[in-house]
Amino acid sequence: MIKAGIIGATGYAGGELVRLLLGHKEVEIVWYGSKSYVNQKYADVYQNMFQIVDEKCLDDNMEELARQADVIFTATPQGYCASLINEAILSKTKVVDLSADFRIKDVSVYEKWYGIEHKSPQYIEEAVYGLCEINREDVKRARLVANPGCYTTCSILTAYPLVKEGLIDTDTLIIDAKSGTSGAGRGAKVPNLFCEVNENIKAYGVATHRHTPEIEEQLGYAAGKEIVLNFTPHLVPMNRGILVTEYAKLLPVKKADGSMGLPSCEEIKAVYDKYYEKEKFVRVLDKGACPETKWVEGSNYTDIGFVIDERTGRIIMMGALDNLVKGAAGQAVQNMNLMFGLEESEGLALAPMFP
Amino acid sequence: MIKAGIIGATGYAGGELVRLLLGHKEVEIVWYGSKSYVNQKYADVYQNMFQIVDEKCLDDNMEELARQADVIFTATPQGYCASLINEAILSKTKVVDLSADFRIKDVSVYEKWYGIEHKSPQYIEEAVYGLCEINREDVKRARLVANPGCYTTCSILTAYPLVKEGLIDTDTLIIDAKSGTSGAGRGAKVPNLFCEVNENIKAYGVATHRHTPEIEEQLGYAAGKEIVLNFTPHLVPMNRGILVTEYAKLLPVKKADGSMGLPSCEEIKAVYDKYYEKEKFVRVLDKGACPETKWVEGSNYTDIGFVIDERTGRIIMMGALDNLVKGAAGQAVQNMNLMFGLEESEGLALAPMFP
Amino acid sequence: MIKAGIIGATGYAGGELVRLLLGHKEVEIVWYGSKSYVNQKYADVYQNMFQIVDEKCLDDNMEELARQADVIFTATPQGYCASLINEAILSKTKVVDLSADFRIKDVSVYEKWYGIEHKSPQYIEEAVYGLCEINREDVKRARLVANPGCYTTCSILTAYPLVKEGLIDTDTLIIDAKSGTSGAGRGAKVPNLFCEVNENIKAYGVATHRHTPEIEEQLGYAAGKEIVLNFTPHLVPMNRGILVTEYAKLLPVKKADGSMGLPSCEEIKAVYDKYYEKEKFVRVLDKGACPETKWVEGSNYTDIGFVIDERTGRIIMMGALDNLVKGAAGQAVQNMNLMFGLEESEGLALAPMFP
Amino acid sequence: MIKAGIIGATGYAGGELVRLLLGHKEVEIVWYGSKSYVNQKYADVYQNMFQIVDEKCLDDNMEELARQADVIFTATPQGYCASLINEAILSKTKVVDLSADFRIKDVSVYEKWYGIEHKSPQYIEEAVYGLCEINREDVKRARLVANPGCYTTCSILTAYPLVKEGLIDTDTLIIDAKSGTSGAGRGAKVPNLFCEVNENIKAYGVATHRHTPEIEEQLGYAAGKEIVLNFTPHLVPMNRGILVTEYAKLLPVKKADGSMGLPSCEEIKAVYDKYYEKEKFVRVLDKGACPETKWVEGSNYTDIGFVIDERTGRIIMMGALDNLVKGAAGQAVQNMNLMFGLEESEGLALAPMFP
Repeated sequence: MIKAGIIGATGYAGGELVRLLLGHKEVEIVWYGSKSYVNQKYADVYQNMFQIVDEKCLDDNMEELARQADVIFTATPQGYCASLINEAILSKTKVVDLSADFRIKDVSVYEKWYGIEHKSPQYIEEAVYGLCEINREDVKRARLVANPGCYTTCSILTAYPLVKEGLIDTDTLIIDAKSGTSGAGRGAKVPNLFCEVNENIKAYGVATHRHTPEIEEQLGYAAGKEIVLNFTPHLVPMNRGILVTEYAKLLPVKKADGSMGLPSCEEIKAVYDKYYEKEKFVRVLDKGACPETKWVEGSNYTDIGFVIDERTGRIIMMGALDNLVKGAAGQAVQNMNLMFGLEESEGLALAPMFP
Repeated sequence: MIKAGIIGATGYAGGELVRLLLGHKEVEIVWYGSKSYVNQKYADVYQNMFQIVDEKCLDDNMEELARQADVIFTATPQGYCASLINEAILSKTKVVDLSADFRIKDVSVYEKWYGIEHKSPQYIEEAVYGLCEINREDVKRARLVANPGCYTTCSILTAYPLVKEGLIDTDTLIIDAKSGTSGAGRGAKVPNLFCEVNENIKAYGVATHRHTPEIEEQLGYAAGKEIVLNFTPHLVPMNRGILVTEYAKLLPVKKADGSMGLPSCEEIKAVYDKYYEKEKFVRVLDKGACPETKWVEGSNYTDIGFVIDERTGRIIMMGALDNLVKGAAGQAVQNMNLMFGLEESEGLALAPMFP
Repeated sequence: MIKAGIIGATGYAGGELVRLLLGHKEVEIVWYGSKSYVNQKYADVYQNMFQIVDEKCLDDNMEELARQADVIFTATPQGYCASLINEAILSKTKVVDLSADFRIKDVSVYEKWYGIEHKSPQYIEEAVYGLCEINREDVKRARLVANPGCYTTCSILTAYPLVKEGLIDTDTLIIDAKSGTSGAGRGAKVPNLFCEVNENIKAYGVATHRHTPEIEEQLGYAAGKEIVLNFTPHLVPMNRGILVTEYAKLLPVKKADGSMGLPSCEEIKAVYDKYYEKEKFVRVLDKGACPETKWVEGSNYTDIGFVIDERTGRIIMMGALDNLVKGAAGQAVQNMNLMFGLEESEGLALAPMFP
Repeated sequence: MIKAGIIGATGYAGGELVRLLLGHKEVEIVWYGSKSYVNQKYADVYQNMFQIVDEKCLDDNMEELARQADVIFTATPQGYCASLINEAILSKTKVVDLSADFRIKDVSVYEKWYGIEHKSPQYIEEAVYGLCEINREDVKRARLVANPGCYTTCSILTAYPLVKEGLIDTDTLIIDAKSGTSGAGRGAKVPNLFCEVNENIKAYGVATHRHTPEIEEQLGYAAGKEIVLNFTPHLVPMNRGILVTEYAKLLPVKKADGSMGLPSCEEIKAVYDKYYEKEKFVRVLDKGACPETKWVEGSNYTDIGFVIDERTGRIIMMGALDNLVKGAAGQAVQNMNLMFGLEESEGLALAPMFP
């Protein structure tokens, strides 16, 4: 059995990690870390775990945790993981960081967008960006994985094949994203109160959201060049789910008869299939079908669909996932499975729940 | 592997059965029955099952189904299962009926409350009322199980121990129930439209709801006498979940010092524990804790709490479950496990999903 | 023009007062009081008032307010109004207190249920309980009105005629109440976060909710005797609305033929009509119709319906209102209209908004 | 008093018209038209109108209606108004058509996008597109007004000043729109059931939605050239509200120092103010503020905000309105006010309701 410790087990992502790891037959949770609830029963914080989890919440003691755990998940605010990590820790245990601390390779970009100093930049290079479908082999060898952001995972997976194959003009790429409210965390803030969110939709962090540089960096690797794009998140009155709607101009391709023309629906589908056909957790929908967040709820799937608009020459790509699963805890488990040589889908074979 | 067939696989309860059976390691679904969607791909009706279920929907052919399946689940409108069943079917396969057809032993009560003629009353006697925690041994030997209603399961389990032990005056028993909207089914009706349900709560079927006689009958068995009670359902703007709030006068009990007095909180808790301590799927909460539907969502648990009001001499009992799981599909699987001698919780070890 | 001041203008009830008073042709708001947002533009706190309200929030200065305002509304936490009020204030201005400070005549009951000392008990006797339909004449002469609670208004109006006429056994009266989340206020607390409330229903304050003694006292006046009852509030995932479902045993009445028997539906209806037929803001629905919170949203109406269950001898009474309007700000305006000799419905002629 | 008749009074837009006209002091509703509910009491269909509207629903009799009414509102499916209208009608009464029949000047575009034959193309030229802020003077003289679509009103008003002044590259204009569910109407369809919409978000009608050509035509007039754009609607789990997020490349302008450069935030704000400062129903928010649908709910306002992204050279424009008010019934009343020479805001001075 793999012994797992969680720092930040009482946030929404931490809670979801607990739910998933409890159903994972190779893992045992040995540490329910929560600074805010030290010594309180975990099931008193999350009553769904009554009679399922008997443990109490523990304070953060990284050294002790490293001794006890084979893997540590940090589901913590930005900057916290970077402040805890060191060679002694990494020599004893593997770390999957669900925060942004090791996602961005250029430390100055990190410090600019997050407004904090990075406390252990020496591990940024080593850290593997844990988007399993893209960096699978590197993840397998990693001791420190930077688990991607929720918006980021959805945004990247939706556009990746077309960016990689040069089918869209990345200068025209616009990502309009919509998220359920659990993405905002469990902090007690007025804007997240039921009456403020319910019956409401708004954009926020327009042109300044911190997932922007992460998306740009990863898609830039795929494109082989720098990408600058618009990313606009919106808050939707639902608990879970992210939907991205992405717009880009299609680039002409060589057709069978030798002429140049926009790629057809079938040609685009073939490109998506090239990358995702064998991926268990990415489902490219049938022609014309639009992803809906409800169809992936509770599962580790990302659903992708697209429509070509011949009037404007643009493709509209759409992706949906559960922000707490594939967008956080599910992907963290998927990374852990890879890091420990387990079946990649172990503990994640959950059919989406509807309705 | 147990071969399972589902009639009514495209209703909400049917869909949930599919979700649960897909995660059940001893079962294979061999028949996705749906008269409304014959020959359509199941995953086109429920897109969450894309790339998970490849089968098409089949028409209802009970004879063929009985040949192919070891167990048939009927998640169908009232009267339908009763019209299909016969000795030839029951001699070949087991049946778990999620409709009300075989729940009520007195056929005249059934026909009065449901307003239809019962087409196979000869099987009512044989049918076992599949409330596993109460009728476990009978279920194990059954070939026909009447799976209890959602409101009913929650209402009965919440009051059962106190009724059984004679601790409450059943003449004063009032059940005020609140349900999510999936209980109303997937039929296209104006009252179930989003804009009619959202931001709204109402009572319905006041003094006439069909689950009333079912609750009265079962609690009557526990009490050893006829019970007549008030049951009032309400429609709540959420997808899943049933909460019942039950009121009754406590009856005096003999105290340690020989005097008579109302039972204490600890005495009531001890009675609940007597019946439920070993039950995996019934969780009696700690003192003062109130059940919430969200804490059981997606799981087969029923959570129970209570408060004694010394001012009025009443006890307020509260119960919560997921109407599609313990209130329908989950309990059906639990019954199936018992009927086939499997571990009772096989396929049902799902931690509730929060948020 | 009546000059109105509001203390607590940035709570949900305070915000609703602003909305209603802006549409009142005889009133001008002269004081937007909010200790938490002093010197901030009111429209920055409630962006719906952008370009409608230009004023800034003011601190609480009761003397100055009394000089400037003809009426002060206190939409503040319990204890605050009682701590501010004195003869100098009341000699200059009228006060409508939306808190509980002057609702309960027995100060020891207040102090027991609210757990705080009452700072100006000398005004309790003078204060008029502002349930307009019942205490209209007293309200007209009042300088201090205790505006009833939201649950209370709904609970009392729904049962009042039957209690007053002795048609129900008040020892059997049980009130099961359901409320939208705005009743919990705008404080930043984890239990009121969107993800905690959405897709969830729970009871709270079982047997201990502070509106209980208020309901008991007022219905006791109607009954001419002490009443002790059960009141159970529930939190519903919607912004606005309260629904109460009330249960009581009907008492026999003398029938036309001289015999005793339970009152008929028509007889009950006639009693409701006796009290409410001329009331603009209480609508007794047609036979069999159940109130729904959505049908009164945004308006000052209370809708009432009932069903007689001959099987149990009980009547199920149901009432619905908008907790922020008839349950708070609307009733406060209705009281103000009475106190100033205006048309009672001035500023309140709002048709409910659907959907 | 203006006598008003409504055809389609039992749809959501029709119901909202009733609500607004009841609060309009110059209007009397003389005809509650509803083919589906002929002879039923209107208040039985919309229980919010109990004791407010006593009339029954009437069948469609255009000639009789034209005799009785000074203005007819048609809140009906596409094609219906065009099939009813003729010179006899228009010579007796004014018509405000809430359907799309007279919105698009090119009948072939209408017939292509709507897939139906236009039955009275001879009135298309005469009909005035009733976007009051833009076509005010023409509306005043109209006998037939084509009331704009909900998405359209929001999309156009948000971009209009910048398009009109040539500040954005219209070839790059992308409109990502999000709507509450009342926009889908009151028809009983599975995709609009509560359980299908709740906890879900999806795009629909991608690249094919019928409001696209209407937006393109109107913005084309402003630009003085043909515009082809992407418009993507999304269904959001809320009753009311539309939010549009619009993206376009800014065009360089001449700066004070003679150089060319992208317009500043202040310059953009000045352009918005030029068009909207005096408009009661369009509110351009302060710098950096993002519109939210909740802040305009129940009102006739459109809120507009914007952010300039210097990294990409794009402007992100955002607009919010209540689809049933400014997006349908409110704008219809605003048009009627103009057509009859009344104060434009009569009956529409409703502060938005929050929460």
